[in-house]
Amino acid sequence: MAETAPRARRARGGGGAARRAERTTVSFDTAKYIERNIPNFEILNEEALQIIEANAEQILEEVGVNFVNNQAALDRWRDAGAMIEGERVRIPKGLARRLCKTAPSSYTQHARNPERNVVIGGNTLVCAPVYGPPFVRDAEGGRRYATMDDFNKFVKLGYMSKWLHHSGGTVCEPTDIAVNKRHLDMLHAHMTLSDKPFMGSVTEPSRAQDSVEMCEILFGKDFVQENTVMTSLININSPMTFDDVMMGAMEIYAQNNQACIISPFIVGGAMAPVSVAGTLTQVLAEVLAGIAYSQLVKPGAPVIFGAFVSSIDMNSGAPTFGTPEASHILYGAGQLARRLGLPFRSGGSLCGSKLPDAQAAYETAHTHNAALLGGVNFMLHACGWLEGGLVSSFEKFVMDADQLGILHHLAKGVAVDENAQAMDAIREVGPGGHYLGCAHTQANFKEAFWRTDVFDYKPFETWQDDGARDTQALASARVQQMLANYRQPALDPGIAEGLKDYINAKKASMPDAFI
Amino acid sequence: MAETAPRARRARGGGGAARRAERTTVSFDTAKYIERNIPNFEILNEEALQIIEANAEQILEEVGVNFVNNQAALDRWRDAGAMIEGERVRIPKGLARRLCKTAPSSYTQHARNPERNVVIGGNTLVCAPVYGPPFVRDAEGGRRYATMDDFNKFVKLGYMSKWLHHSGGTVCEPTDIAVNKRHLDMLHAHMTLSDKPFMGSVTEPSRAQDSVEMCEILFGKDFVQENTVMTSLININSPMTFDDVMMGAMEIYAQNNQACIISPFIVGGAMAPVSVAGTLTQVLAEVLAGIAYSQLVKPGAPVIFGAFVSSIDMNSGAPTFGTPEASHILYGAGQLARRLGLPFRSGGSLCGSKLPDAQAAYETAHTHNAALLGGVNFMLHACGWLEGGLVSSFEKFVMDADQLGILHHLAKGVAVDENAQAMDAIREVGPGGHYLGCAHTQANFKEAFWRTDVFDYKPFETWQDDGARDTQALASARVQQMLANYRQPALDPGIAEGLKDYINAKKASMPDAFI
Repeated sequence: MAETAPRARRARGGGGAARRAERTTVSFDTAKYIERNIPNFEILNEEALQIIEANAEQILEEVGVNFVNNQAALDRWRDAGAMIEGERVRIPKGLARRLCKTAPSSYTQHARNPERNVVIGGNTLVCAPVYGPPFVRDAEGGRRYATMDDFNKFVKLGYMSKWLHHSGGTVCEPTDIAVNKRHLDMLHAHMTLSDKPFMGSVTEPSRAQDSVEMCEILFGKDFVQENTVMTSLININSPMTFDDVMMGAMEIYAQNNQACIISPFIVGGAMAPVSVAGTLTQVLAEVLAGIAYSQLVKPGAPVIFGAFVSSIDMNSGAPTFGTPEASHILYGAGQLARRLGLPFRSGGSLCGSKLPDAQAAYETAHTHNAALLGGVNFMLHACGWLEGGLVSSFEKFVMDADQLGILHHLAKGVAVDENAQAMDAIREVGPGGHYLGCAHTQANFKEAFWRTDVFDYKPFETWQDDGARDTQALASARVQQMLANYRQPALDPGIAEGLKDYINAKKASMPDAFI
Repeated sequence: MAETAPRARRARGGGGAARRAERTTVSFDTAKYIERNIPNFEILNEEALQIIEANAEQILEEVGVNFVNNQAALDRWRDAGAMIEGERVRIPKGLARRLCKTAPSSYTQHARNPERNVVIGGNTLVCAPVYGPPFVRDAEGGRRYATMDDFNKFVKLGYMSKWLHHSGGTVCEPTDIAVNKRHLDMLHAHMTLSDKPFMGSVTEPSRAQDSVEMCEILFGKDFVQENTVMTSLININSPMTFDDVMMGAMEIYAQNNQACIISPFIVGGAMAPVSVAGTLTQVLAEVLAGIAYSQLVKPGAPVIFGAFVSSIDMNSGAPTFGTPEASHILYGAGQLARRLGLPFRSGGSLCGSKLPDAQAAYETAHTHNAALLGGVNFMLHACGWLEGGLVSSFEKFVMDADQLGILHHLAKGVAVDENAQAMDAIREVGPGGHYLGCAHTQANFKEAFWRTDVFDYKPFETWQDDGARDTQALASARVQQMLANYRQPALDPGIAEGLKDYINAKKASMPDAFI
């Protein structure tokens, strides 16, 4: 888990202008993605796994899945050997799993700064921020509709967050920009305000195509065709429905060798059975069908086994997060993904709370822990999620991003080399002594412990004199401080201009639409 | 994990008066201790375990431990084959581990209500509340010195907390009662305001003796000698020092077949090396020496392998909680305890925050999760801990106690029986449907999901109309509601009188002392 040192970096696509830009740029310390040196926690035994796998195959063959408004998909499935009846696709046992075999077990997503490239799969964990909320909240302004200005701030915070590896996608919905144009501004923000990897648009197949074309400007056309530069989120309409918009976007990405997360989006008890085993069965059936389809479109296209699952409060119907049932499903889905040899997406800073308070933190920490121990390879929503995903919270973004450092350190495992054994220290100090000044402590204390950038460890009296601030207030101060210190990463001016021209031309080509 | 239904219960020691008391008593729903149906998370591989075990033996033989001001202990050790030099006890390799073999791998701690008996060891987890803080905090009164009135309230809250199995010990320090008499009032509160199992006094050997004698009144003299009715906390003065007060109390308990937690109390980097492996080595050496000594006092006396370990903030010297290093140590210590075949104590609602805010909750949730997955059998401080253990928080008590329900549900594991497989539900609903009304959901939703008694799941507008309360405010309301609904469990009036007489006589026998 080497961490890259902060220093000025060479922008891709070089040239004199880029070098001049580089000299005026401050870069921020970012940890490499997490590589686990600890085991996965496996909650299902072999018998349970086999039951769930057999049941998923049974469901695919007997009940099937719907591919809606997508004749090309039905044709592909028929050619592959599935039974087609209207929009229903019944997949003979074993077929979907066989088709999944061409999907890679891990892949590299390239960033425009190569030091920010991430490997997704195997023993890695890549963290990306919250995705999708129409609202934002901060301590000063309260809860309000999100704007492009908010979006830019979240991208900046993400760029400056040491333990966050990925810039994400729709960090909030910029509701002040036309629906048919906002993907251009969002991508532009990720491409220019950060140098970390990012996600493409999925709200229309044409917007996925725009995303590919903007990447061709940023990375070069050949580079995009030969390398994965986006990982995008394709939700399944659970139960067992694949709509034409999401599948259309997925087809564009697969055809261009770009990665997709194929992800059931489930509130347990509503979109899947109330039982964990039943939900896992449905999740597996859906992912098998979705990933098999991606491989029918383009064998070898990189994909991720996704599982976004929350529980439900049966009193109110509200989705609930950080629950034991959600953890059970995460742990089980991780095992199912590993048996398929596929990268696994789950987890996040999920919570139902309206405020970045204790409820939010308990719920988030449960999911963070399960994600690390359950073998998640890509954690979307890793920071900033609030109120069931309706709100992107500025304070919670920096609180959660700080917490991701805990996952980094947990993942390191326990060193037992001679220095770590510390036998000389124990001999030196002896019964009744203390270790604060001993040679081993002096040599190791700087790296020994994870350190927070948000929490308060002061003595009570000092804390009280400083205003007796709670975590939200401390986080609010950190948000302000980070945004004040933000410096844009260098980008070749030619590329920057190319992106602007592309966006201007696209925007001019159609009227604003707000639906 | 059967839960006992709420109903009136028969008090031990029966009789007409008891039956009359019983008829006027409301009892509260309490879950049985947790029985894990999930694997333990094991962070150390066999090689690491063998290195740590060999190093611990090396330390015991080469460096040794101090038994302070305790000639009887030195004599016992000499007779057992240790090398004695002043107060230093050097224990030949293998001796301590051999002596530990007579300690039971699990034991039952009896409560005066037999339905509240707990089994400590094997796959169980028993949760007890915060222990030791001199201050209390609540939303209304802020932070202040704890009193006996506060103590009583915490015992009542513990009695009414469904997921809390144990009444604990010094839930806060009643600073308004003389130091040499407060143990009597504390024990009296546990014995009369609750019917859950509890802990004895350890601040003086004579107070341990008083604890035994009060239990003989409550349970009957023979019952106490034949059964374990207290589990008490014996801290080791790390590094490697066993003081006469703690050892004196332990000797009393062991001689009376009462259980002790033998527990290093370590702030890593101060009382142990800064490295995880070094700390685990010292923890193991200390516990081996302490438990071996308990078995020299009384072979077969029930004991628990304890590990209270926090990290340190090297800037301020403050202990820190919920850190990845603390989790590493907890996971590793659990493995070492299981290899010794001993019950394991660690975890708790540990946090450094001054308020029951997000920091407190993140830190607590990390430790709660590690405690469940790391195989902890007895979790002291499971609820109510605040500010590094300086403060017992009323709000955090009910917040954390609610969280313990999550551990219960996580521990159940994943059912894969035919009902849990839910194949008929998946068939019934099919692609594009929803599960809210289906037969399987209707039959299972009541038991399907953990439900909070504290958190907010309301729609945003309803929550706002209800006062936009954060978790602390919701918890504060719950504290008031619980205390308003408290009803004392029935106790045989003869026993109640016996306890009062004993306490009055003891108090009259000595002047108040406040040191």
